[in-house]
Amino acid sequence: MRIGELSRRSGVPVPTIKYYVREGVLPAGTLTSPNQARYDDGHERRLRLIRALLDVGGLSLSAIAEVLEAVDDPGQPVHKVLGVAAGRIIPEESGKPEESGETDEAEDVEAAEGAGPESADAREEVAALLARRGWYVDADNAAARSLAGVLAALHRVGHGAFVELLDVYADAAEPVARADLDYVRRRVAREDLVESVVVGTVLGEAMFGALRRLAHVDASARAYGDPEEAGRWAGA
Amino acid sequence: MRIGELSRRSGVPVPTIKYYVREGVLPAGTLTSPNQARYDDGHERRLRLIRALLDVGGLSLSAIAEVLEAVDDPGQPVHKVLGVAAGRIIPEESGKPEESGETDEAEDVEAAEGAGPESADAREEVAALLARRGWYVDADNAAARSLAGVLAALHRVGHGAFVELLDVYADAAEPVARADLDYVRRRVAREDLVESVVVGTVLGEAMFGALRRLAHVDASARAYGDPEEAGRWAGA
Repeated sequence: MRIGELSRRSGVPVPTIKYYVREGVLPAGTLTSPNQARYDDGHERRLRLIRALLDVGGLSLSAIAEVLEAVDDPGQPVHKVLGVAAGRIIPEESGKPEESGETDEAEDVEAAEGAGPESADAREEVAALLARRGWYVDADNAAARSLAGVLAALHRVGHGAFVELLDVYADAAEPVARADLDYVRRRVAREDLVESVVVGTVLGEAMFGALRRLAHVDASARAYGDPEEAGRWAGA
Repeated sequence: MRIGELSRRSGVPVPTIKYYVREGVLPAGTLTSPNQARYDDGHERRLRLIRALLDVGGLSLSAIAEVLEAVDDPGQPVHKVLGVAAGRIIPEESGKPEESGETDEAEDVEAAEGAGPESADAREEVAALLARRGWYVDADNAAARSLAGVLAALHRVGHGAFVELLDVYADAAEPVARADLDYVRRRVAREDLVESVVVGTVLGEAMFGALRRLAHVDASARAYGDPEEAGRWAGA
């Protein structure tokens, strides 16, 4: 199909499609003349995936480019691809948002903070959690470092008591993770499998986030019995 | 304390502190001479909160400014503040990331998509879920719209089957939301209460996300019994 047809079918404007090709997140079409290219169903599918990761998953275009590049490289073993995906999705403890407008000095201080007392305590809390739950996870895993970053931040903002909810959260995470894995295991083809994991990781997280906020509104309404107060956790 | 002391205690460089004051996320210090200001413990606490929301919560500085402005306005009823917080945190179905470099045309198309068949189906799925679970939530709630956005995206990328996991996720969200609410109800002062909700919403989401990914690694290791394959869900 031509680019206009691809635009109509995907709902993505032509200039945006061209922009994605330039940025390397969407493969170029096959040239049929010097200034005309053909696109296929694979382009349409990829375009929908890009929009979902951007709009619902909240990933940046550069993160999407890196994840999709790994997905498309058949030489990459599956677990390496997912390492890239997880690395792009998981906020690293030392990671800082690009738009925070900081100087290099900030990085030095943050690196030093990463070695501060809260971080050491947080890493111990994560190691204790993994042992307590009997989870087969290396304490140096990216998600473990990410969790340690969250716990350190909670301590730093004076909400260390929130860490007491860790096991309630872990109890909830276990059946969700098992269901996610069952979903992925139904996929056989490598591309399908990898895409399922990316979709499950990113959109699954957004799905749980929305459900948790809905459950807050419900729990609040039951606790206070007042529709005004029911807005306590989410803007009703 | 002077700005240098505030910097040492918070681990945030002086130029960054000045930047936050200019951007309106941190109140200015009290001037003690034409070019010297005093800061107090409130500034230090606020600075740590800003860093946590930026680094761990992944919020933009403009989102943080809006949330904190509402927190600081004593004329705002609590549920209004949380409406602002939820509105900034929840990705709206029609919301698009600022850096996606799109034209105005894109917005029109997206608005049209919002009325497409997937969106109508997704809204019905959310209404059915709320009825099935008996949750006291208005179907027009921001989190309900956000969930509908996630479901519509799943259908659009050809992963409509993932929606079957909705009740597994909802089962997990209920005890988490109850624990969150119990945590918040222990706070009495308004500022404390509102801050707890912001922290719980943003950092709690990051905490669950990290735990879910850890549980993926564990579930994968148990299912495949192969440490190589255990990297299937997260970069081990």
